[in-house]
Amino acid sequence: MDYQLTLPTILRRAETLFGHKEIATRLPDKSIHRYTYRNFAARTKKLMMALQQLGIKEGDRVATLCWNHYQHLEIYFAVPCYGAILHTLNLRLSPDDLAYIANHAEDKVIIVDQVLLPLFYKFRDKIDVEKIVVIPNAGQPVPDGMLNYEDLIVPSDTSNFQFSELDENTAAAMCYTSGTTGRPKGVLYSHRSIVLHSLVSAFADGLGIRESDVVLPVVPMFHVNAWGIPFTCTMLGSKQVFPGPYLDPASLLELFESEQVTVTGGVPTIWLGILNLLDADPKKYKLDSLRSLVVGGSAAPKAMIQGFEERHNLNVVHAWGMTETSPLGTVSNLTSELLLAPKKVQYDYRAKQGLPSSFVEIRGKSEEGFIPWDGATMGELELRGPWIAKAYYNTQDDEKKFTDDGWFRTGDIVTIDEKGYIEIKDRTKDVIKSGGEWISSVALEGVLMGHPSVAEAAVVAIADAKWTERPLACVVLKDGKSASAEELTKFLEPHFAKFWLPDAYEFVKEIPKTSVGKFKKSALREMFKDYKKHI
Amino acid sequence: MDYQLTLPTILRRAETLFGHKEIATRLPDKSIHRYTYRNFAARTKKLMMALQQLGIKEGDRVATLCWNHYQHLEIYFAVPCYGAILHTLNLRLSPDDLAYIANHAEDKVIIVDQVLLPLFYKFRDKIDVEKIVVIPNAGQPVPDGMLNYEDLIVPSDTSNFQFSELDENTAAAMCYTSGTTGRPKGVLYSHRSIVLHSLVSAFADGLGIRESDVVLPVVPMFHVNAWGIPFTCTMLGSKQVFPGPYLDPASLLELFESEQVTVTGGVPTIWLGILNLLDADPKKYKLDSLRSLVVGGSAAPKAMIQGFEERHNLNVVHAWGMTETSPLGTVSNLTSELLLAPKKVQYDYRAKQGLPSSFVEIRGKSEEGFIPWDGATMGELELRGPWIAKAYYNTQDDEKKFTDDGWFRTGDIVTIDEKGYIEIKDRTKDVIKSGGEWISSVALEGVLMGHPSVAEAAVVAIADAKWTERPLACVVLKDGKSASAEELTKFLEPHFAKFWLPDAYEFVKEIPKTSVGKFKKSALREMFKDYKKHI
Repeated sequence: MDYQLTLPTILRRAETLFGHKEIATRLPDKSIHRYTYRNFAARTKKLMMALQQLGIKEGDRVATLCWNHYQHLEIYFAVPCYGAILHTLNLRLSPDDLAYIANHAEDKVIIVDQVLLPLFYKFRDKIDVEKIVVIPNAGQPVPDGMLNYEDLIVPSDTSNFQFSELDENTAAAMCYTSGTTGRPKGVLYSHRSIVLHSLVSAFADGLGIRESDVVLPVVPMFHVNAWGIPFTCTMLGSKQVFPGPYLDPASLLELFESEQVTVTGGVPTIWLGILNLLDADPKKYKLDSLRSLVVGGSAAPKAMIQGFEERHNLNVVHAWGMTETSPLGTVSNLTSELLLAPKKVQYDYRAKQGLPSSFVEIRGKSEEGFIPWDGATMGELELRGPWIAKAYYNTQDDEKKFTDDGWFRTGDIVTIDEKGYIEIKDRTKDVIKSGGEWISSVALEGVLMGHPSVAEAAVVAIADAKWTERPLACVVLKDGKSASAEELTKFLEPHFAKFWLPDAYEFVKEIPKTSVGKFKKSALREMFKDYKKHI
Repeated sequence: MDYQLTLPTILRRAETLFGHKEIATRLPDKSIHRYTYRNFAARTKKLMMALQQLGIKEGDRVATLCWNHYQHLEIYFAVPCYGAILHTLNLRLSPDDLAYIANHAEDKVIIVDQVLLPLFYKFRDKIDVEKIVVIPNAGQPVPDGMLNYEDLIVPSDTSNFQFSELDENTAAAMCYTSGTTGRPKGVLYSHRSIVLHSLVSAFADGLGIRESDVVLPVVPMFHVNAWGIPFTCTMLGSKQVFPGPYLDPASLLELFESEQVTVTGGVPTIWLGILNLLDADPKKYKLDSLRSLVVGGSAAPKAMIQGFEERHNLNVVHAWGMTETSPLGTVSNLTSELLLAPKKVQYDYRAKQGLPSSFVEIRGKSEEGFIPWDGATMGELELRGPWIAKAYYNTQDDEKKFTDDGWFRTGDIVTIDEKGYIEIKDRTKDVIKSGGEWISSVALEGVLMGHPSVAEAAVVAIADAKWTERPLACVVLKDGKSASAEELTKFLEPHFAKFWLPDAYEFVKEIPKTSVGKFKKSALREMFKDYKKHI
């Protein structure tokens, strides 16, 4: 029973059992490209033969700068099945970060969407790759000095193709964290970790994906392997639908309807946009086939989960993970106990991050040691499991992210309740440590942003001689609206203990943000680091 | 990511996340014993401590001679989590075979149901175990010289309990084949293979078990680990219901109804008995909660699948496996393509053995090489995968059961159709090789047993100078009924090619059977080995 858990088995299975199933892609010209798993497998093998001809060796990094489409799926399998490492570049990062990442990973080849060449040109001169391959999806000639992806694939004869035997611990893919603190860091995924992650994603209690599903990953394939969805779907033979570069709500809703999508996944921003469009015209789209909208990447607001269900009969599944966790860490499915609970309680639980996946172990650690599972005590979430990273790629800069006994320190401050449901309260660097107690900046922000005059609110720590740290709320008011510090304090009071309430409010024009749209609290802390002196 | 796939993770998960969930058992006095996963985990840890006190070492074999009940579940986890090997003895075997198996496995300890002591006494003197532990479920004093299971468990304090770290390739359990040819042979299961088998069993496209299910394994825990169901359910936190010694249709139906069972599994004989009882009184039991009757162990008759669905709205899921395959090899779920097919076609597919599970690879081999997937060409089924055996325990007597390139030869003659669905046609030793073509004895028997006068029919090969082998049908007529050879040939003709039709018929009083009730064709072949000479 020393059978290795590797991706070639998944590819062979898809080819032999699901050859007739379809993979559909929206192309840059908005038309739909369709082909079958049989075509996909044949082209993937040809790509593997082309990698050899390009001089790629086992363990070499092959980078992609691509949207979600069928060629990206081919690369997802060809590169690891060949024994090389798939390295997806996040096209939302700055050109500087992209250059840093490509150089740090020592990418040998980069495969670029023709429609993304303008972005590529912004960092091309800063990186040192041997070959540039262009997926000709803009309908223009491929520039001199670059290879045409389709030319690589056409000529090969795969009739005598043989997969090489790989050890399951061979590295298959790598992603870099988006780097909100310091430089982005690389995480390597082995064949084994991707396979095990795929198996658990197929659980009825996981994402519950099956062969009869039609799955559209809105989450980009350059973002933690699109949560592993392309691997899971190929293993199961599910129909896959790729949205290409069109991630606006109307384009997605059209695809959901026309392709009869059953499962889709993306970040809350996407779903908020879709919810708005559905609310504006509830009868426009027929979405009867859609059984599961998976939300991850950041916390799903309860009102959004409720809005989809109550106004549009659509089921939102809240999941949580990180680059370092492959990413599936928790899923907030309702247990049989909660299925009998009142609707209000169910929504409370569905808005939490949920229960750990099978084989993911959790614990929370505060300054006093491991936290009790009481739903109240806060601590940093630590994880271990077969698809949880144990180190970063080629760096000493681990920032104590991994414990001596092999657990990954997530940097998320959580509570865990007696049922094992996790709720994220803050990031370790953002939580406010006031007199030995922790105050959740996220919780304060959540309530503040519910005030009718408040557009955005970010709460950060300011130094305090007596309490070490105290909360300061930075508030952006809506156009033409006003609110005083006293009024906001009154608004917060019913929700929090007295010592949680901010010591001060600063009304600002905007909250600084990162490249992926998150609050950049480090900038706020820097801005207000001497705050105490001027009040 | 070198996290090991071992059973302690499953036990810890059950304890921390599903401590409140229930495990119910029907005791020998017919009352129901109930406790929670929390109780189960605590007692399992105490049993692990008791194993140490009994002097059990890592790798030692601990045998059980038990029905399905909660203590058996405790042993299922305690023995492997301790690092020893769980060896379940099949109480349906003859005392001679049981003695042979216990000696061959070198069992150190045997744990016996008090209600099974009469069977145990039949082979006790032939085996050499250090300790005999009795589960006191007959309400009588434990005999001198034997230990009381409950006494082992009571005293320990588990507050400082620590699981030892196990390598995933450590042997966790072993089962012996029922040995229809030659001596029973042992198969070892590693922690890794049991864990991976559990993961795939939880697939929506596998058995689809989830936390909210209530699962009753009718299949005995001494039979290929009850198909792994107790491991899978504990991983998922499903409520488990154990029937104890009561496997008669009425007792099972009562439990299905009273415990609101959702998933159950067993051999066709069990389901045929249940179908008869339901047909006799269709309104007696309320089985609305039951969503899946898993049938395996031998082929499920199509009429039975149809009968459950059409007359009682109950869904039968056909699965196939062997001791050597852990056992989940194939499941006959309908693919999205077949979900759109006419009902009749669906039944045809549901009566096949189905598609291979994820990570199980299949091929068929005939004398001409690998068979095409055409649904017609017959060949021996070969498998490989992470839970498929690669050798038998401690024997040279492998009968060429494993190929040089690492595949397991099942001994089953199958066809594989273009969709990948497997249909078992015969056993290699039973198929009739006539002039280079193969004739399925099972197919002939199936039709013969549909004749109104035929009670049982077994078809075996007889030697033939021209064709090498030709079929002989051994027929048992129903009481008071008659049928001639000519009449039976006429009855077969519409179903088969002419060369398939038996050369001769022998009307016999009974077909010899094995200890588990299968036709003993070796005896028939022996009986008729010189057949040609006397016709």
